[in-house]
This record gives sequence, C-alpha cells and structure tokens, in this order.
Amino acid sequence: MSLTTRLHIIGSHVNLDLRRNNKTKFTRYIPRFRSQPIYYTKEFVPAAYKCNNPRMQKISGSAVPMVKSSLIDPDGGKLVDLVIPESERASKTLEAESMPKVRLAQIDLEWVHVICEGWSSPLKGFMRESEYLQSLHFNSLRLSGGSVVNMSLPIVLAIDDETKESIGSSKDVGLLAPAGYLIGILRSLEIYTHNKEERIARTWGTTAPGLPYVEEVITPAGNWFIGGDLEVLKPIKYNDGLDHYRISPQQLRKEFDRRQADAVFAFQLRNPVHNGHALLMNDTRKQLLELGYKNPILLLHPLGGFTKTDDVPLDVRMEQHKKVLEDGVLDPETTIIAIFPSPMHYAGPTEVQWHAKARINAGANFYIVGRDPAGTVHPTEKRDL
Amino acid sequence: MSLTTRLHIIGSHVNLDLRRNNKTKFTRYIPRFRSQPIYYTKEFVPAAYKCNNPRMQKISGSAVPMVKSSLIDPDGGKLVDLVIPESERASKTLEAESMPKVRLAQIDLEWVHVICEGWSSPLKGFMRESEYLQSLHFNSLRLSGGSVVNMSLPIVLAIDDETKESIGSSKDVGLLAPAGYLIGILRSLEIYTHNKEERIARTWGTTAPGLPYVEEVITPAGNWFIGGDLEVLKPIKYNDGLDHYRISPQQLRKEFDRRQADAVFAFQLRNPVHNGHALLMNDTRKQLLELGYKNPILLLHPLGGFTKTDDVPLDVRMEQHKKVLEDGVLDPETTIIAIFPSPMHYAGPTEVQWHAKARINAGANFYIVGRDPAGTVHPTEKRDL
Repeated sequence: MSLTTRLHIIGSHVNLDLRRNNKTKFTRYIPRFRSQPIYYTKEFVPAAYKCNNPRMQKISGSAVPMVKSSLIDPDGGKLVDLVIPESERASKTLEAESMPKVRLAQIDLEWVHVICEGWSSPLKGFMRESEYLQSLHFNSLRLSGGSVVNMSLPIVLAIDDETKESIGSSKDVGLLAPAGYLIGILRSLEIYTHNKEERIARTWGTTAPGLPYVEEVITPAGNWFIGGDLEVLKPIKYNDGLDHYRISPQQLRKEFDRRQADAVFAFQLRNPVHNGHALLMNDTRKQLLELGYKNPILLLHPLGGFTKTDDVPLDVRMEQHKKVLEDGVLDPETTIIAIFPSPMHYAGPTEVQWHAKARINAGANFYIVGRDPAGTVHPTEKRDL
Repeated sequence: MSLTTRLHIIGSHVNLDLRRNNKTKFTRYIPRFRSQPIYYTKEFVPAAYKCNNPRMQKISGSAVPMVKSSLIDPDGGKLVDLVIPESERASKTLEAESMPKVRLAQIDLEWVHVICEGWSSPLKGFMRESEYLQSLHFNSLRLSGGSVVNMSLPIVLAIDDETKESIGSSKDVGLLAPAGYLIGILRSLEIYTHNKEERIARTWGTTAPGLPYVEEVITPAGNWFIGGDLEVLKPIKYNDGLDHYRISPQQLRKEFDRRQADAVFAFQLRNPVHNGHALLMNDTRKQLLELGYKNPILLLHPLGGFTKTDDVPLDVRMEQHKKVLEDGVLDPETTIIAIFPSPMHYAGPTEVQWHAKARINAGANFYIVGRDPAGTVHPTEKRDL
C-alpha cells in the first residue's frame, strides 16, 4: 500500500485531487477562520505559536513548543453537542413520550451517535432537503454566513409510508432505539422524497446491484426522508465492552491538549493494522518531525459502525490494535486509539472526504489517505469502483 | 409553467435550492469580487451606482441611472477568449499541420465554440482530470487563488484507443472540424480514463438507458479523455443563415453597455416561446422595475447546440422568436435575441447551473429558472428524472 491520493479540505474551500502518482504523502488542513475556538489555554501564547506554519515555529527558536490548544477549528467554528444536560432528561423524556415515534434501525442509531457528538458538525440533526441536495450535488454545505464546509455523504433518516402517516402534521417525533426505548427527539420536522436511484448514482457513481451499504440500508429503507433538529437524551452506549474506546470529538480534543500535541495525524481503518499501515503511520510521524513539529500525536481511529460481513469484526480488530501498541509497533506515548462511530459506505472518493472531515471535527489537522480509500470492487464488473 | 425553483450562483459560493414551492421568482447574482472588470466607462461613476443594490440606487435620487458597464464579472474575473489574432493564423495553421490530429464530432465542435468564446470561463480548454473530477464531485472548480466557481457539467473531449495511439507522447494535437479542415490546437495534453458509467451516474443521477445526450454522445464515444489548452484559428461559423444570431459573451456585454442596461435578465429556452414564457419574461421585467432598476434588458437566449430529435429545430425556433418580437409580445427596444451555442444535456438541476453560469459570463445578472429546468422524463420509469 502506498499513498497516492491527496485530499484537501481547507477551511471554507474544498479541493479533491484524486489523480494517481501524486507525491504528496499526507494532507494538511489550514484553517481559514477561527471564529469560535472551543478550547484555549490560559497561558500566554505568542502569535508565532498560534500559526500552524512549522517554519514560523522554528523561527521562534524555542526548544519546547507551547500548547496550541485548538490545532484546527471544527467545521462551522463550533463543535456540535446534542446530548441534553442530565437535569433536563426527565422532562424531555416525558415530552417525547407524547410524540409520534420513529423506530431506528441499528445503522440509524450509529448516525444518531455520529451527529450528536459533533463528528458531522455543523449538522444539528438528520438532513433536511436543502442540506441533502447540497450534499448530493456539491459534496458541501453552504452556511448562513456564506462559508462552505465539506459534507460529501447524505446523513439522512428514511421512514416508510406507514410511519409518515403516523406522524401526520406533528412538528416533532420521539426516536426509539432498535430495542424500543426512547433515545431522543427530532424537532421541526421536514419530510421529503427519498429518491433512492439518484442518491445511489450520485454517491457511488454507479447503480449496479450489490453495493454493501445500498443492500443493507438503502434498498430496504422507506421512500421518505425525515429531517430535523436532534436532541439525544443521554450519551449513546453499546455495552459491548468497547465503550471506553468510544471517545467523543470533545474528549479527543481535550486529550490532545493534555498531551500537548502540536500536530495530530489521523489514520482511518476498518481492518487489522498490517505492516504497510504501520510503516505509513511511522513515516508520517517522521515527516511531521522533519517539518518542525515537536510532538505529533497519532489518532489510530478504526471505524466502529456498520461494515460488510467479510470485514474483520470490531472486537477482534480492537484486540489486534491493542497488541500492536503492546508490541511497540506503534509508540503508546504518542498514539491514541479510539473508535470512530460512523457506519461504512464503501463509497471511495466520496466517502474519504467524510472520513477526513469528521477527523477535523475531532481536532486532527493531518489525515493519511491510502491508495484506494474507502474503496471496493465494482459490484458487477471486474474492476475497482 | 410557473417559477418554483431558485438557483444561486453567488461569486465564489454556490447554493442550490431546488425545493418546490419556493416563492422567489428569479435569481439575482451578487458578485463578491471585481478583481478584473473587463468593461468600464470613462465617466465618473459614484460608488452608489457601482453597487447592485437597487435600494442604494433609489437613495441616490438620480432620475437617469448612469451606465454600469459591467453588471457582473465573468467567473474567474476575466472573460476567456481563445480565438487567436488573425496575424498569427498562418503560422499557427502551419504549426498545427505538423501535429497529430483529432477529428471532432459536431457536438465536440459546439463545445469548442462554447469554450473559445468564454461561455465556460475560466475554462481555457477541454478539462484535464483535476477539473473533470472537481466538476463531477463538486459541480465547481477551485481556482488557484482559492475562490470557487460553478462548473456543473464536465466539458470534455473523448477519443478512442486508435486516436490515443496516434497521439503517442505528443504534447499537442491539431483539431479537425467534422468536415476535415483544421480549426484549432489543443496544447499541453493530458489523456485520462473516460469512466462512462460514473460520468453518467454523477451527471444525471441515473444510469438507465435512453438519456438523449448519453445515447448521442457518451455511449458511442471513446474510452479516453483528452484535456488541454485550446487555441482556435478563427471564429466558429455554421453558415446556416443564423450566424448573425451567434453573439459572443464579449459582444453581448458590449451591447448591454451600448443600451445602458442597469439589469440584464436571461431566459434560456430550447422550444418556441409560448404564452407562459412571455408572461414570465414580462413579469420579471415588471419586478425588476419595481425593485428600482430603470432599464432592464431581456436576453432571449435559445440554445443552439444539440437537442433531441423531438425538439423544434433551431431555424424554425429563430423564425418564431423573431415573430414574437415583431408582434410586440416582447418589446424589441428592451430585448436582445441571440443563440447560446451549447449542446443540451437534459440533465435537470445539474445542467441548469451550467445554463445560468454561462449567462453570468455573458453579463446577465438575473436568470429566470422554470419549474423543471433542463428536465426530461426518466428514460425507463413513468416520472420526471
């Protein structure tokens, strides 16, 4: 495996460079605005340290870099957090009880998890039609201030005719976990058509049968989308012995601060770490040190949501990742292992933008992109999609 | 027919709003930068007149607005013009004779026409891979300065294996018209894969057989794209008795200046003007006058390139449009009829962006969008695409 693609998601601008044989080995995010930094240090930070340019850090001549508590702003300037305060839980639960209900499938629940922790900031719920169409056509969302952020995958909740009818003209619905208990509320609803063919064509560039996410999620789904503002009653837990690995973007940002990271590089994977991966990660660290960073931290970030049946199960992967650190293949001092709660689309260049964008929100300012990221074979032809 | 969709292509930002029942009746472009205005008046123009805000014009209190010679900048700040000066024609022709040749189909020639007159500014030739992928994934192009312009359709030249082989490692090719004579040069070539399925899926949102442009152009085309910088030896003419209607963006901008237009509203059509169209155009003029504009000019702009066989032929349409003006349905004093040389894709929301963007380049700062612009029925299902 070698790095031959480069993806730039730079502040309010988006540039996809998918040409082969590109020599750039990793991606650097240069934030264009810092309207609302969500973390800060009380220590005085000279201007030179606030700049992401490693050359400026060298110029400063200091041996020990000071803490830069927010290496990169979340998209939209503020990390979204939709888990309501515990003090409101009882009253909101009571309120939700009286609403029409939408029962989620397991993958819907994974998206609730993704949205409520701010991985998809600035999204504040399942997409309404305007957001959905912008995502399909522009792989981006235009914010009210006029700036543009990347949003390459539609993050949507489908319902069937029966559920639509049961909602009627209600403005809000209660969301039920697959097991049937209340987990949240979707407010100020907008219900619109789920054009499955167009969604598939514009996301995967093919409508050939056999795409894993399409077979699992889209084909069986209802013909309507329901968008709205999300409120989640309490943090999403899976009780599978792996919840301690499910670290939110907010918690990750705090941990990067605690470790005094001056660069964070993320590595997305959905299979065991192999030797090529390890070489990539260690080489990226080396490159960052050569660029002048003093304390680059690796975010080893396996995807924890839906994967296709022939991928290695999450619990096995987490065990393997743990061993990789214990064996010293990666340095535990400069590595954080956590689970990225998103389901997998297997949508290649369209999906890798999502993978990188979510890591911006978690505070990573570098992202390693592989040869064929989020790729899969064409479902009916003998070639990569 | 009624206006229910709104499209914003605003300076460096793009926002597509395709929801039904939108009450906005037409689109206003607000240029965000004026780095290189290509037309100017020598008269002193007070700041208030330079602003597109009609309220500011009212505030100025002047009865006769002064000429605003550039109502809207072309995308990228400068109108592209790729027809070489006559003085260089002989030497460039001689040079092109010695190059490998690519013979164009009629629709390729229409695209050469579109590109060389600057309708697709800032594009300077058939797309290279980076431009093609940005167009497919983002409906936009990122310029070197970091700004983003709309570019929703790939403007590409396909070649077959045999032609690719004949080009070999040559950096430039001569372009032959369908009739076989030299019309231009494509320089600094880049040859890359024509993934037809992905192109179709991401442009139309379906891969169902029977889409007119796909059947006519894409399916019979070769498996390679050739991108590069275009030079055209002399202005493209069709000698069909309609060339006097083929007015370039540069000529249109001059004409708007000559008429002292303070607003230009474009109407794209590919069929005869019917009563609904006429009402739309006259109502738009009325709305613009109510907004405070003193001299809105209508650009009645029938598409002149490829259309499907059951559309009305261009010569018949032009005759009909002429009659509409002679009969006073539209006012000849405030209307310009010209031909838009682009071929038709029938790609709905993806194509209407192209239609509007090209009219920005021609100097129109308002664009009328219909109920189902550039729409067609789904080729295999009983619904609109």
